[in-house]
Amino acid sequence: MKTAFIIYDGMTTLDFIGVYDALTRLKTMGFMTDFTWDVCALTETVTDGTGLRLLPSRVGGSLAGYDLVIVPGGPGARARAGDPAFLDWLRTAAPSARKASVCSGALILGAAGFLRGRRATTHRTAFDELRTLGMIEVVDERVVDEGEVVTARGVSSSIDLGLYLVEQIAGSEIRRRIQRQMDYQPDAD
Amino acid sequence: MKTAFIIYDGMTTLDFIGVYDALTRLKTMGFMTDFTWDVCALTETVTDGTGLRLLPSRVGGSLAGYDLVIVPGGPGARARAGDPAFLDWLRTAAPSARKASVCSGALILGAAGFLRGRRATTHRTAFDELRTLGMIEVVDERVVDEGEVVTARGVSSSIDLGLYLVEQIAGSEIRRRIQRQMDYQPDAD
Repeated sequence: MKTAFIIYDGMTTLDFIGVYDALTRLKTMGFMTDFTWDVCALTETVTDGTGLRLLPSRVGGSLAGYDLVIVPGGPGARARAGDPAFLDWLRTAAPSARKASVCSGALILGAAGFLRGRRATTHRTAFDELRTLGMIEVVDERVVDEGEVVTARGVSSSIDLGLYLVEQIAGSEIRRRIQRQMDYQPDAD
Repeated sequence: MKTAFIIYDGMTTLDFIGVYDALTRLKTMGFMTDFTWDVCALTETVTDGTGLRLLPSRVGGSLAGYDLVIVPGGPGARARAGDPAFLDWLRTAAPSARKASVCSGALILGAAGFLRGRRATTHRTAFDELRTLGMIEVVDERVVDEGEVVTARGVSSSIDLGLYLVEQIAGSEIRRRIQRQMDYQPDAD
């Protein structure tokens, strides 16, 4: 099970880190030693929408080897949705790979053609924009699962996406333990 | 209003990013143009507990110029709590500056002497350890405010700390707008 966390200039880092924290605990908490990932970008350094700089673990290259490809949103999402080289890079993901997005990351998945004919969600302020990408039924839910593609709503729903994927990958008991370790909605346990 | 976000090897990045996302929106959403910050470390590159690499905006130097100094937790927190050079660096913060921690970051604040005689919280699995640092009343609450020092419980409570500080700095209406933009507990709005 190999995951590509996509990062890019102008992203919102919490969109990336919420799902990253939950999923990588499959390995760091010892539940799945074969859960591996890369943090993938097309640039050597990534500067998020606030000026924070991060270093990818892998620059460029095909995404064909990943089972799961996750795209965050942020103020830079629209630029990437209009960037043919970036979209071509995402399209190197295997057809069978699951694609996921957080927040306005859905605009990028939509522009890459992954959302055609599907239900999807995004940040509430981007609902109309997502509709204009054509053949997408925009849904006001926190996580929308269409099998091959999973989309999450606004910024902090990244954590919900992560826990949702954890449960699908490893079951509800491991999800419960990871959620508790993250101290997320602890009263809901 | 100037904030130092402390980062270090082995931290949990969500501990840092939850509060960072909420607070920096004071500026990025246009509410406070004079809200500024640095991401501060003692090393040129920081590698978090999962291997993710981040670049600080400022390396070393005194923390005396900051109004707010925020310390995340993570698997590397105990090493920093036992690192005299790191603790001395934190002690360069002005006595009047507010110190805040997330998760096991409280162990670092405690080791630096900032929690003496105060109520504080940390990740539930670190309650006993925090008590051993002496003269600290450990409290099982999501955010504990002792004026000069504010501590938050586990990982995702970083977001709650951020929104709590936003409200203190800019009021409840701006907190509500930032919380909504972050899509955090949207049903609680």
